[in-house]
Amino acid sequence: MPAPPAGTGERHPGRRRHDADSVLDVAVTVFIERGYDGTSMEHLSRASGLSKSSLYHHIASKEQLLRTALERAVGPLFDVLAEPQASTGRAIDRLEHVVRRTVAVLVERLPYVTLLLRVHGNTETERWALERRREFDRTVAALVVEAAADGDVRDDVDPAVVTRLLFGMINSLVEWYRPSGSPHVAPAATGHHGLGPKELGDAVVRIAFDGLRR
Amino acid sequence: MPAPPAGTGERHPGRRRHDADSVLDVAVTVFIERGYDGTSMEHLSRASGLSKSSLYHHIASKEQLLRTALERAVGPLFDVLAEPQASTGRAIDRLEHVVRRTVAVLVERLPYVTLLLRVHGNTETERWALERRREFDRTVAALVVEAAADGDVRDDVDPAVVTRLLFGMINSLVEWYRPSGSPHVAPAATGHHGLGPKELGDAVVRIAFDGLRR
Repeated sequence: MPAPPAGTGERHPGRRRHDADSVLDVAVTVFIERGYDGTSMEHLSRASGLSKSSLYHHIASKEQLLRTALERAVGPLFDVLAEPQASTGRAIDRLEHVVRRTVAVLVERLPYVTLLLRVHGNTETERWALERRREFDRTVAALVVEAAADGDVRDDVDPAVVTRLLFGMINSLVEWYRPSGSPHVAPAATGHHGLGPKELGDAVVRIAFDGLRR
Repeated sequence: MPAPPAGTGERHPGRRRHDADSVLDVAVTVFIERGYDGTSMEHLSRASGLSKSSLYHHIASKEQLLRTALERAVGPLFDVLAEPQASTGRAIDRLEHVVRRTVAVLVERLPYVTLLLRVHGNTETERWALERRREFDRTVAALVVEAAADGDVRDDVDPAVVTRLLFGMINSLVEWYRPSGSPHVAPAATGHHGLGPKELGDAVVRIAFDGLRR
């Protein structure tokens, strides 16, 4: 990513917006690589090719960058829960919708969701993100409980454990899924997974809901 | 864990063994907390209550500690693959056996497997561990392919994706599973999971093989 000339933001508001987005993308990459705690403004300066004072022209603080990045994961995830198909109909169908759409958000917002899943809770922003994650998990867990009460979810596994395993499956995508043509390959990758969001959502729903056994 | 008096190891070989194990356990806890790269001998000294020279009395290096810890995960995992039920019979049954036993190893060796799953590949030892993980994954992936060829695994999801989702589910245990009565609770934990290794293995096999839907 080429560094824009410092200061052009003032004269071109459109460019400034663009610059802020570029800085955010660079920051997210560095946060994922080094961990948020292990990233300094110096690292962000080096990675973005901007001096620290230019960086501060675009952003208020490292934590503000994290907040903006995490909002790009948290917002769309909660939008899923607000969709009509997530709130009307049989619980098992709502659950299936939420799983399918969560996978889609995860694929579309891969770096932001990756960051969300690695947050530790050392700062105000991280604690906010953890609380949002917990709220999301609680909503899905309640759907599993409701579907189990309807007799649509197997009753020989505790719904809390079902929810954990379901999220285990979904969240693992950030470790191994890379969009077709992406140069990034997960450390333990053994193959290519050129699936789009829809195919991936179908795969997760099939395995999680009906199992791998034929 | 109380710090043993420095030097007693020389006079009591049994104690020395015990001390080395204690140092290893402390080190694994610190490695998981701070990351291996983020851990110095100073951190290990503080956490163990031993001076650096006492530490070097028990261990050769930080990397040697990591190697010993990772061997405690890798060894039992490969032992599973060598069990008769993993090499004879129908592929789907061998796969089920491997999944059930992998879950058991994961529970019994929780901190060591947690460390294994977080290894980055910056040192010789980490690269060795990553290669062992890949070999384990490849063996399981081959079982899935064989079971699919037998017509026992659904054919509407790529076996490579099935394998990934299966490991996603299994590996997530290190994030949320805590043995009954354990003081450690995962950041996003919403409940208690006092399941033993057997019950947990059953739960994973049921959800992964037959799905959560009734």
